[in-house]
Amino acid sequence: METVYERKVNYYETDKMGVVHHANYIKYFEEARVYFLDKIGLSYKGFEETGIIMPVLSVEAAYKSSAEFDDILEVKTRLTRVTPVKAFFSYEITDKKTGRKVCTGSSAHGFLNRDFKPLNMKKEFPEIFKGLGESTDEAR
Amino acid sequence: METVYERKVNYYETDKMGVVHHANYIKYFEEARVYFLDKIGLSYKGFEETGIIMPVLSVEAAYKSSAEFDDILEVKTRLTRVTPVKAFFSYEITDKKTGRKVCTGSSAHGFLNRDFKPLNMKKEFPEIFKGLGESTDEAR
Amino acid sequence: METVYERKVNYYETDKMGVVHHANYIKYFEEARVYFLDKIGLSYKGFEETGIIMPVLSVEAAYKSSAEFDDILEVKTRLTRVTPVKAFFSYEITDKKTGRKVCTGSSAHGFLNRDFKPLNMKKEFPEIFKGLGESTDEAR
Amino acid sequence: METVYERKVNYYETDKMGVVHHANYIKYFEEARVYFLDKIGLSYKGFEETGIIMPVLSVEAAYKSSAEFDDILEVKTRLTRVTPVKAFFSYEITDKKTGRKVCTGSSAHGFLNRDFKPLNMKKEFPEIFKGLGESTDEAR
Repeated sequence: METVYERKVNYYETDKMGVVHHANYIKYFEEARVYFLDKIGLSYKGFEETGIIMPVLSVEAAYKSSAEFDDILEVKTRLTRVTPVKAFFSYEITDKKTGRKVCTGSSAHGFLNRDFKPLNMKKEFPEIFKGLGESTDEAR
Repeated sequence: METVYERKVNYYETDKMGVVHHANYIKYFEEARVYFLDKIGLSYKGFEETGIIMPVLSVEAAYKSSAEFDDILEVKTRLTRVTPVKAFFSYEITDKKTGRKVCTGSSAHGFLNRDFKPLNMKKEFPEIFKGLGESTDEAR
Repeated sequence: METVYERKVNYYETDKMGVVHHANYIKYFEEARVYFLDKIGLSYKGFEETGIIMPVLSVEAAYKSSAEFDDILEVKTRLTRVTPVKAFFSYEITDKKTGRKVCTGSSAHGFLNRDFKPLNMKKEFPEIFKGLGESTDEAR
Repeated sequence: METVYERKVNYYETDKMGVVHHANYIKYFEEARVYFLDKIGLSYKGFEETGIIMPVLSVEAAYKSSAEFDDILEVKTRLTRVTPVKAFFSYEITDKKTGRKVCTGSSAHGFLNRDFKPLNMKKEFPEIFKGLGESTDEAR
């Protein structure tokens, strides 16, 4: 499963180099991840209401070319792997008009409860765990 | 009482115009407000631990000149007025080196409890209310 | 002329109060302003390519209620007035689902050239000035 | 050479989880990098005035524990390696009071001129290249 999240670059996301500041891509990844979960019927807002949080354990980004104000970006997002306690996402950002690769990246997440204690999703939320599992790359 | 909060401009706070993006000054105001409370012995972190939050009801900023990456700014901050249910701050940002005026502004805040219900500070936190009152412009 | 810009709240736009941090509304205003210009056929990107910048001279926001992660906001935007050297916008943000008023605000802008010198739009860019003028409240 | 950059967490840097949003650490890295260059007598502002920019090629961060509003963080920063065309930094963020490890990370940078074309620092700016080289881990 791969989702494509479309996103226009805002003016305030540029820096004095004239292009998108690199920290913003980490935010684009987050937006795209929320979008991915929505598309597989598992909203992150719903997660939090259920008592599941999914903090970022690590993130990495490689910048291929720069994006400018008003560019429309596409963030291709995949859930590469899920375990009972972790989830792994990957991202590829391209310029919609030219297809130019802008940025690639990945993030790892833990499943925690509201008290920041690790959750075993397979045991405590088997339905959600199943839904996530079926949307991973490995399930293809 | 006026406090002077010193703050270097970060690279990521600039935009493609080459100067600090205007939304950042609203953040500088917040930093300066927290600093002001610290200086009068009333930390905002302590407020929240006590069960007091102080959300912004309104904010305004007037931009006089632009600031650049690496500039050192001084945010002069005053608590212009306090009522049992509201507090009003004013700000003046200047460039430390040149004294050039960069931005002025003000913000109004309500006092709420953790459930976002209005607090009467005079009744429920008379000590803190007194401390704030003594630091206002009117108390001078 | 009034445009309605739709915008989902991102996770990273919330703060520890659990709601959208107030500085973000200033960014939403900017997004909505760019959208307004697009809708009247005058892209802000095009402005900059032509050598026109439109820095913010002042901004104000009044917060009516809080917005949360994943809420869909509507930013109603109007160009209240244009002079040869300035433009004035107003904004009203509501929650799309409930219609609840979230935030109102306004901003004033100068017209400058690339060297940050004031432009007289009526003289130097009469076509654009006309287009802006026809989209103001006063033109209705 | 290792520099220690001290940094208080701002309120607006937290998210609804109640802790610093992960994207902000990427910004802290940048602040710490600028601080490092200052300490070795090579300001990044000076770089840009000379015609050198140092965009991020890649960045990664691993989150060890969360930081909260008002915490004082220390960002230990090292220039791990420099080549004529690239520079590599590493970061370790700890809580100043407790010594708790919060985040580690690294970033890779290219040297470009104002037209975004690769620079050979050794040839074109030998003095600066020497200064950087003497501050790397390898030079110890």
